[in-house]
Amino acid sequence: MKYASWTNDLRQSFLGEILKTASYTETISFAGGLPAQELFPNQELKECFNQVFEEDGPIALQYAEARGYEPLRQWIYDRINTRSKLKTTSEIIITTGSQQGLSLVAQTFLDPGDIVLVESPTYLGALQAFQGYRPRFVMVPCDEEGIIPEELAEILTKCQPKYLYVIPNYQNPTGRQLSLARRLEIIEIARRFNLLILEDNPYGELRFEGEALPDLRDLYENVIYLGSFSKILSPGLRVGFLVADQKTVSYIERAKEGVDLFSNNLTQRAVYKYITSRNFKEHILKLRKVYCERRDTMLQAFKDYLGSDVQVETPKGGLFIWAKILKTKDSLEFLNYAQAEKVIYVPGTFFYPDGRRSNEMRINYSCSSPEVIEEGIKRLGRAVERI
Amino acid sequence: MKYASWTNDLRQSFLGEILKTASYTETISFAGGLPAQELFPNQELKECFNQVFEEDGPIALQYAEARGYEPLRQWIYDRINTRSKLKTTSEIIITTGSQQGLSLVAQTFLDPGDIVLVESPTYLGALQAFQGYRPRFVMVPCDEEGIIPEELAEILTKCQPKYLYVIPNYQNPTGRQLSLARRLEIIEIARRFNLLILEDNPYGELRFEGEALPDLRDLYENVIYLGSFSKILSPGLRVGFLVADQKTVSYIERAKEGVDLFSNNLTQRAVYKYITSRNFKEHILKLRKVYCERRDTMLQAFKDYLGSDVQVETPKGGLFIWAKILKTKDSLEFLNYAQAEKVIYVPGTFFYPDGRRSNEMRINYSCSSPEVIEEGIKRLGRAVERI
Repeated sequence: MKYASWTNDLRQSFLGEILKTASYTETISFAGGLPAQELFPNQELKECFNQVFEEDGPIALQYAEARGYEPLRQWIYDRINTRSKLKTTSEIIITTGSQQGLSLVAQTFLDPGDIVLVESPTYLGALQAFQGYRPRFVMVPCDEEGIIPEELAEILTKCQPKYLYVIPNYQNPTGRQLSLARRLEIIEIARRFNLLILEDNPYGELRFEGEALPDLRDLYENVIYLGSFSKILSPGLRVGFLVADQKTVSYIERAKEGVDLFSNNLTQRAVYKYITSRNFKEHILKLRKVYCERRDTMLQAFKDYLGSDVQVETPKGGLFIWAKILKTKDSLEFLNYAQAEKVIYVPGTFFYPDGRRSNEMRINYSCSSPEVIEEGIKRLGRAVERI
Repeated sequence: MKYASWTNDLRQSFLGEILKTASYTETISFAGGLPAQELFPNQELKECFNQVFEEDGPIALQYAEARGYEPLRQWIYDRINTRSKLKTTSEIIITTGSQQGLSLVAQTFLDPGDIVLVESPTYLGALQAFQGYRPRFVMVPCDEEGIIPEELAEILTKCQPKYLYVIPNYQNPTGRQLSLARRLEIIEIARRFNLLILEDNPYGELRFEGEALPDLRDLYENVIYLGSFSKILSPGLRVGFLVADQKTVSYIERAKEGVDLFSNNLTQRAVYKYITSRNFKEHILKLRKVYCERRDTMLQAFKDYLGSDVQVETPKGGLFIWAKILKTKDSLEFLNYAQAEKVIYVPGTFFYPDGRRSNEMRINYSCSSPEVIEEGIKRLGRAVERI
């Protein structure tokens, strides 16, 4: 068989491997980006599915429109429209998780060879989503405040990208938040170069400290925004959404029809039922509290078991800590030591489109109990001693 | 904004319009391809979702593997392996409806400009799925027995397509079944030219008469096979599957990770629960019986109300009748008359990649009661009188 050309340059599917580790038992996995499953509102969601079956059973099981369940779109419209100026729900489309949003945007905007700007490092799954459309990635250098504006401006004098992909809040993999000053600077530059921004915000609600910062879409009109229920309700349900101007949404809708016709209709209705009839706000507050405790446990464990062998950034929200093991130059190689001690993480290399090696790693704290976090970091400390 | 080049040559999204008509009340729509929603096993599915919540709640709501829920893959493996020789479940992947299977195959095989062979006419949604990857379509002439082997052989001497897309059973839009003799001839030709076949079989189980014919994948190794629960259980749940050799499935899995990570995990488990603990076989027998009655009602109504003004093919299964209105040359124009009488169908033009006009139409009988079918065809008769 003769496959499409993109299949020639596939790197190992590490993301898939990560998801598999969810089911390992002996090894402690800090590799996944999983929410804590003991916090899923299992009973309430069950009741919501029951209600949908009872009230709308047949129609919830039928074909539906690509754009998504209208009341859910209306809810999203009301919720995100506090700061900005959407005109109608036709600027919103429901997606099969926000991962599908990434893929649909790529399909709608990219011809082979087009340039996409990404944060350096960036979300592995976004690279996978975009790769199917064969763009060239240009990495925008970042520091602890996010994208460095001068670097972005410099890059834009040299090339004309289709869009800049950015996760402003508690970024995957670094946990970093783009500061307000940086947001304003970046928007100013984007405006100057008429740059389309793809803003991905799955973690924004998981804020542990400080005030919520304005979304880029509140500050600039040339933004496609992706949201998701995966981190704040359940990823297994695959419900996300995309917000853009009407024309873009109409193209995205067309693309979505070709891709999967529409997203699970029953589930959209059950999610709507949950968020409108249960205490969703309280649920999110609970997630924040538990994840913040886990973050603190992990930070403390790093101090206790690795001390000056590690350099750790403190995320203000989200699911991840970005750490550098100072005694190694290559966190992919170091993974062998870690695995020998039965603990895993994602080496930094996978978050760079150029595959550069470094001593960085992404460590997840959301889906492990404090005890497991402590034990896992202890093992990581032993792994460092093996070097 | 600058969109990808495929957006330049979009035809009207008729498929989306069709799905919308599902909610019209005054107009009788024979345009959709909807299953009868009064036949969905609503109560039983509700119980199955409940069971999944009770038994596996948290894990069903969590991230999962791109390839799909293993017991469901195993069930598919056992079911389709009666005639053929799958070696492992790694030759199967669950998709978000078989529409996603179409899109993933296109992504995995097509570079821009590659040739795809399609039946003439063919499923509109497949054209939409493939179009995102900008192939050139070559139409293979068909008659009432399906693809004409001589025409296929002739085409293959002139070009090297990436694959042939075919719906062998109760085709969409024609309702035709590829005869056994034709299957054997086509396979012989495919073998000679080393042609990959993409076999789409959403309607195969909806057989009203005759014996089941062997799938192309039972007769030939170079086949990617798509199956779906949309027509035999519920389309709103978006569960389909793809069967291919391991290497192809591994590429498809990679593509799927980028596209939506994995299919709704809760739903896969509930579908598995339903098909293994309820009387799925009896449910399918019931669908066959009801749809067969509706087909007969529609055929009779055509005789009664249109007589010699129409030429109708009798499908042996599935959801559609393919009809030619003899008093018009263009069923798209005739749609204006039909709409004036408050009845709609899909004009043939939408099923031809070259958009050719003809007097053909696709008429769906599965989702209307016998009374509505009779009334709708009566209206169609009145529309013909308006010509």
